[in-house]
Amino acid sequence: MVVVMAPGATDAEIAHVVARVASVGGNASVSKGIERTIIGLVGDIDSFHGLNLRALAGVADVHRISDPYKLVSRQHHAERSTVWVGPASHQVPIGPETFTFIAGPCAVETAEQTIEAARMAQGAGATILRGGAFKPRTSPYAFQGLGVKGLEILADVREATGMPIVTEVVDARDVAVVAEFADMLQIGTRNAANFGLLQKVGEAGKPVLLKRGMTATIEEWLMAAEYIAQSGNLDIVLCERGIRTFEPSTRNTLDISAIPVVQATSHLPIIVDPSHAGGRKDLVVPLSKAAIGVGADGVIVDVHPNPEEALCDGPQALLGNDLRELAQAVRRLPAAVGRVDARERERRA
Amino acid sequence: MVVVMAPGATDAEIAHVVARVASVGGNASVSKGIERTIIGLVGDIDSFHGLNLRALAGVADVHRISDPYKLVSRQHHAERSTVWVGPASHQVPIGPETFTFIAGPCAVETAEQTIEAARMAQGAGATILRGGAFKPRTSPYAFQGLGVKGLEILADVREATGMPIVTEVVDARDVAVVAEFADMLQIGTRNAANFGLLQKVGEAGKPVLLKRGMTATIEEWLMAAEYIAQSGNLDIVLCERGIRTFEPSTRNTLDISAIPVVQATSHLPIIVDPSHAGGRKDLVVPLSKAAIGVGADGVIVDVHPNPEEALCDGPQALLGNDLRELAQAVRRLPAAVGRVDARERERRA
Amino acid sequence: MVVVMAPGATDAEIAHVVARVASVGGNASVSKGIERTIIGLVGDIDSFHGLNLRALAGVADVHRISDPYKLVSRQHHAERSTVWVGPASHQVPIGPETFTFIAGPCAVETAEQTIEAARMAQGAGATILRGGAFKPRTSPYAFQGLGVKGLEILADVREATGMPIVTEVVDARDVAVVAEFADMLQIGTRNAANFGLLQKVGEAGKPVLLKRGMTATIEEWLMAAEYIAQSGNLDIVLCERGIRTFEPSTRNTLDISAIPVVQATSHLPIIVDPSHAGGRKDLVVPLSKAAIGVGADGVIVDVHPNPEEALCDGPQALLGNDLRELAQAVRRLPAAVGRVDARERERRA
Amino acid sequence: MVVVMAPGATDAEIAHVVARVASVGGNASVSKGIERTIIGLVGDIDSFHGLNLRALAGVADVHRISDPYKLVSRQHHAERSTVWVGPASHQVPIGPETFTFIAGPCAVETAEQTIEAARMAQGAGATILRGGAFKPRTSPYAFQGLGVKGLEILADVREATGMPIVTEVVDARDVAVVAEFADMLQIGTRNAANFGLLQKVGEAGKPVLLKRGMTATIEEWLMAAEYIAQSGNLDIVLCERGIRTFEPSTRNTLDISAIPVVQATSHLPIIVDPSHAGGRKDLVVPLSKAAIGVGADGVIVDVHPNPEEALCDGPQALLGNDLRELAQAVRRLPAAVGRVDARERERRA
Repeated sequence: MVVVMAPGATDAEIAHVVARVASVGGNASVSKGIERTIIGLVGDIDSFHGLNLRALAGVADVHRISDPYKLVSRQHHAERSTVWVGPASHQVPIGPETFTFIAGPCAVETAEQTIEAARMAQGAGATILRGGAFKPRTSPYAFQGLGVKGLEILADVREATGMPIVTEVVDARDVAVVAEFADMLQIGTRNAANFGLLQKVGEAGKPVLLKRGMTATIEEWLMAAEYIAQSGNLDIVLCERGIRTFEPSTRNTLDISAIPVVQATSHLPIIVDPSHAGGRKDLVVPLSKAAIGVGADGVIVDVHPNPEEALCDGPQALLGNDLRELAQAVRRLPAAVGRVDARERERRA
Repeated sequence: MVVVMAPGATDAEIAHVVARVASVGGNASVSKGIERTIIGLVGDIDSFHGLNLRALAGVADVHRISDPYKLVSRQHHAERSTVWVGPASHQVPIGPETFTFIAGPCAVETAEQTIEAARMAQGAGATILRGGAFKPRTSPYAFQGLGVKGLEILADVREATGMPIVTEVVDARDVAVVAEFADMLQIGTRNAANFGLLQKVGEAGKPVLLKRGMTATIEEWLMAAEYIAQSGNLDIVLCERGIRTFEPSTRNTLDISAIPVVQATSHLPIIVDPSHAGGRKDLVVPLSKAAIGVGADGVIVDVHPNPEEALCDGPQALLGNDLRELAQAVRRLPAAVGRVDARERERRA
Repeated sequence: MVVVMAPGATDAEIAHVVARVASVGGNASVSKGIERTIIGLVGDIDSFHGLNLRALAGVADVHRISDPYKLVSRQHHAERSTVWVGPASHQVPIGPETFTFIAGPCAVETAEQTIEAARMAQGAGATILRGGAFKPRTSPYAFQGLGVKGLEILADVREATGMPIVTEVVDARDVAVVAEFADMLQIGTRNAANFGLLQKVGEAGKPVLLKRGMTATIEEWLMAAEYIAQSGNLDIVLCERGIRTFEPSTRNTLDISAIPVVQATSHLPIIVDPSHAGGRKDLVVPLSKAAIGVGADGVIVDVHPNPEEALCDGPQALLGNDLRELAQAVRRLPAAVGRVDARERERRA
Repeated sequence: MVVVMAPGATDAEIAHVVARVASVGGNASVSKGIERTIIGLVGDIDSFHGLNLRALAGVADVHRISDPYKLVSRQHHAERSTVWVGPASHQVPIGPETFTFIAGPCAVETAEQTIEAARMAQGAGATILRGGAFKPRTSPYAFQGLGVKGLEILADVREATGMPIVTEVVDARDVAVVAEFADMLQIGTRNAANFGLLQKVGEAGKPVLLKRGMTATIEEWLMAAEYIAQSGNLDIVLCERGIRTFEPSTRNTLDISAIPVVQATSHLPIIVDPSHAGGRKDLVVPLSKAAIGVGADGVIVDVHPNPEEALCDGPQALLGNDLRELAQAVRRLPAAVGRVDARERERRA
C-alpha cells in the first residue's frame, strides 16, 4: 500500500500516519518529494484496511498495490485449473487444454422443447446442456421460469442425452433444491453482487458458473469468486457475458480482453457467452470464433428449436445454418489455437 | 409498439407479422415507406410481448413506445406521492412539499458510536436516522455488520432520540427480523436487481428506500420499484446514489438529472445520497445543495463521530465544519426553491 | 511517482529501475514488502516520463502521484480566478463571487431570429450572448452554420444590446476571423482533444470557453486547458456539459460533481450547460438550479424565439414559462448560496 | 420515421404534425392506440429533419428508422469493398478476402529506429508500415512527433523495404504535406469528430484509415466515414481501437462485436488495433487472434526495436517472443477462418 500525502501535509500529519501503521505492526517508509510525500507500507495488508488511512488529516490518496483476492489468484496457485462437470461417468472438463461447448435453451418451457433443444445442441457438438428453470426477469410481468418442474425436465433430458446440466439459481432459498438436480450451478449477471447467494452456492458442493456482473470490474468479479471460494469451493468457472457501455447496437459490449486479463491473474477457467453479450443471433457465430481465437476455455450459447415461440430471449437463439457454422467452428478452430474440443477429449479418453 | 421491417422484407413477411398481431387480438397498421415498412401495433401490449416479434423473419427492430411500469407511473397516478416514515407519533414525511434530511453512520459499530452519530445528525437537522446493521461488502474479508445486535442498538437509539430508523436488508431471509426493528427498509445498490428480495420486502408492510443500481437505467430502477409495488406496497422512496461511468475522480457519478426525469414519469418521492455518490467528504455539502436546487425530496448523508475509526466508508463521513455548513444549507435553501424542511413541517403541525 | 514491481521481480530488475531514475538525476527510495517491492521516485517528474518505466522488466505498474497540469492548477495559484468578457466598457465577470447567465440561440439563423433571441435572453437576465456561426455537426447532411455572415449578425446584435458574444470556433483556420468578431471563443465538446485548435485559440488573445469533451475525464479536460494556457492565455472558463454514459433518458449525463472537483484542483472558473447536457427543455430549469446549488460560476442556456423552426437543437431551447422560471431562479437563488448575479454586480459597479 | 405522441396529445396536435409533414411533401399515417397515438412518416427523410418535429406540442418522441449514412452503407452497395494501399507496383489489399497485417512504431523517432522496426514488422509478416510523424498528445509537455522530418524518414524506409506507409494527420493544415509522402492517411481516435479534418482528408486522393473515436457509437463512426465519402473518397478502412468504459484493467475496452456489426451495415473494410485497445503488450497477441477469429480484415500493431527507449506508448510495443507468436498466428489462423493473408495474396498474384 502507498499513502500519498496532500501537497501541504505537515510533519505531524506524516508522523501520525507512520504511528498508525506501526500501531498494527506495519512498517512505513517515507519518501519526501519536492511537492509531495509518499509513504510505502510494508506488513499485513488486511490490518491496514482497519486503519481507515484515507480519513486521516493530510492524506490525499491511498493506492492499493496488491490484488484483494487470494484463493482465486494465480499468485499462490500458478497453474491454471480445470473444473470437471457432471457425474463421474460423464465428466466434462472446462480448463486450459480443452474448449468446451455448452448450449441449450435460455428457459426450459416444456419437456418437448427442452429435449429438442438438447438434441440440437448435442448434434452441434455441445457436451454440457444449459437451461433456465428459475429466471431473473427485469419485469415482474415477464415469464419467471417453471421452477422445480423445470429442474425435473432438465434431469430427464440429462438421462436421455447423457449431458450434464448447468442451470441458474437466483435465490439463496433455492440453492438446495437446484443443487439436488443440477450438475453445475449458475450465478447470473444480476446476482454477481448478491453475497448471501454466493456464499450459499459455495457451500452446495457443486461446480459453479459465475457470470460477470454486467457492470462489474474484473476485480469485483474475482472478489465475487473469492466469496464462493471462501465457502470452501474452488470449482468455479468464470463467464464473460458483456458489460454495459454507451454503445447501443449490441445489448452489452463483450469485453473480449477480459479473457487474457483474467487468465493472467486468476487460475480459474473462463468461458464466453456470446448470446447474451450481443443479444443478436447474427453475432453468435463471429463472437464464438473471437472467443476461440482469444483463448477462452469454452462458450455457452442459446439454442431453441423454434425461436419464434421462445418465452425468453428468442431473438438471440441460434438455429439452422448458424448452428451448423458454429458446430464447424467449434470442431476446427480450437485446434488452430492449440486446444482440443471437449468432445474430442472424451473420445480420446 | 412499432415494428420496423428490414429494407428487403417481403409482402409475405409483412403479412405474417400482421397475422401474428391479429392472433392475440391486436391491430396492425402498415405504413410502406420508400426504403422500409413500419407497422404500428394497437392493442394490449402485454399480449404482444409473447409474440417474440423480433424473432420473426423480415423484422429489423421493435420499438416499445409506452413505459413498461404501471403502478409506479404517473400516467394513472398524476399527483406525486408522500411517504410517511416512523410510528404514528413521530411520522416524518418524504414527498413533494418537504425536504427531508436523513443522516447517520454508514455502519452501526457500537451503541456509543451510534447514539453519538445520531445526536450529531439530529443536531444538524436530520429527522430520520440511517445506520447499517447488515452490510453488503464486495470483499469477504471486510466488516459485514453487527446483524441483529446492530438492529437492537438502532432501536435503542430511536427510543432515545425519537428518530425513525432506516436500515438495509441484504438477504430475503432477513426481511422479517429487519422489519420487526426498522421503520423503513433500505434496498442497497447491489441488490437493485435481486428480485426475490424486492418481492419479500414489498410484503413486509414497511416503507422502502430503494437505491438505484449503480448500473441501472432509470427505467430498470422503476421496474425494480414495480416489483415492490406488485407485492402490494406503494410506500417506496427512490434514492439516486450515483452511477458507474468512466470518470475516476469520484467513486460514482451522481446522475442529478435523474431527479427531474423520475419526477416527470413516476409519482414516487426521490432523494439523493451525496455521500456514496462521490465517496469524498468534500463533495457532500455541494452535492447536497445541488440536490436541493434540482428539486429532490431529501438527502441521506453519512455522519460519524470519529471517521478515522469508522469500520466502513470513513472517508466520506461528515464532521465538524462541513456538517454545520450542511445543516445551514438544509435549513435555508429548501425555502428558496419552494420547499419546507421536514423538521419545520413537524414544528408547524 | 511510485513504481510497483511485479511479485517475482528480481534484485537486478529493482536495481535497474533505481539506476534509470538516477540517470536523470532522480532519487529512488525502495520499500521491500512481503509480496511486492515499491519504489518511490523523488525529483523532476517530467524527466521520469522519458524513462518509459512501465516498459522495464519486472515493473508491474507506475502510479503518477501529482497532477499532470501546472498552469491551470490551484497548487501554485491558490486563489480562484475571475475571467472578464467583453469590451472594456461592458465587461462581464465570470468567477467565484458572481453567477453569470449566458444565453442565446444554438445557431445563428437570421438577423431577426438572433436579435429576438438576444432580447429574450437579456430580458431573462442574461449578460452574455451565445450563438453559433460555425456548427460542428455529426451529419454532413445537417445545417453547418452561416459562417462569417453569422459572425456579422452577432456583432450587430452586440451593438444593439450591449451584450458581449461568445461563439464557437471549429477549425484552426477560422480562429483569426472568429476572434475578430467575438468577445469569447468557444471550444466545443467535439474539439476538446483537437490540440492544434486549442493552441491556436490560446494565441488569439481572447477569453476562451472550453467545453468538456463528452468522454473526457476531468484530468484530460484540465490538460486541454493546459494546452491553451501554454499558448499564453489563462483567461479560460471551463464548461461542464454532460458526459457519455449508459443512461438513455438524457442525451448526456450532467456530471454535477465535476464542479466542486474542478474547483478544488483548478483556479479556473467553471460554468454548466444544462441545455446540451440533458437535451430536453424540461430539464433546463432544474439543472440550472442544481448548478447554482452546487456552486457553479454560471450557466449557458439555449433560447430560441420559435423552437419549432430552429435549425439546430430545437427540442432543448427554452421559451415562455420555463424562461421566466429560469430568470427568477437566476435572480434569487445565487444569493442563497452566497453569490451575486453578474447583472447585479454590474449594477453595483 | 415514427412520431410518438404524448399520452394526452390532442387531436389538434396530431393534425398539426400531419400538416407539417404534408407541408414538405411527406405522408403521415396515424395509428391511434389506447394510450398513445403513433404516426408513421413516409417520404424524403432529409426534409423531415428540417421540421424539428420533436419540438412540436404533444410530441413525446421521434424515432429514426433508417440509417443516417448513405455512401458507406451496404444498403445500396451490398458487396463488401476492398481498399488498395500503396503505389501501383506494391499495392496491398485490405478487404473481405484477405487478412492484412500492418505494423510499425507508434512514433517515428530516428531513421535507425524506424528502419529497424520496419524490418521487425516485415519479418513478422507485415505488409504495410505504420509510424507516427505528427502525434496528438493529451499533454502539451509530451513528445509531439518529428513532423515533416518524420515523413521523410518514413518515405526512405518505404524505399528500402517496399512497404506502403500509413501515418496520422492531426491538423487540416497538414493534410497536403502528409498526403505527399504517405500512401494512406490515418485519422486518429481524438479526431474522429473533427469534421473539417475529415473533409480535407477526403479530398486528398489517398486511402484513409479512420480510427473509431474512443467514445463514438458505431453510428457516429460511420457518419464520420460519410464525411470523408462525401468529399469524394470511398477508399476508407475503419479501425476499431477500443472504447471508453468503466473497466480499468485495460486502457480501453476493445469492442470486438463492432467488427460483425459494421460488416453487416457498411461495405467498408474494418481492421483492429489491439495495441491501443489494451495498452498492454501481453494482450496484443490474444486480441489479434480474437480479431482474426471474429472476421476482421486485418490488424495494426505497435512494434519497437527497444520499447524501453520508446518516446511514445512503449509499454504496448511488441518484441521478441510475442512478435514471433503473432507472426505465426497471422500466418496460420486466417486460413482457418477462410481468409488469405495479404502477403500470401501478393505471392499468388
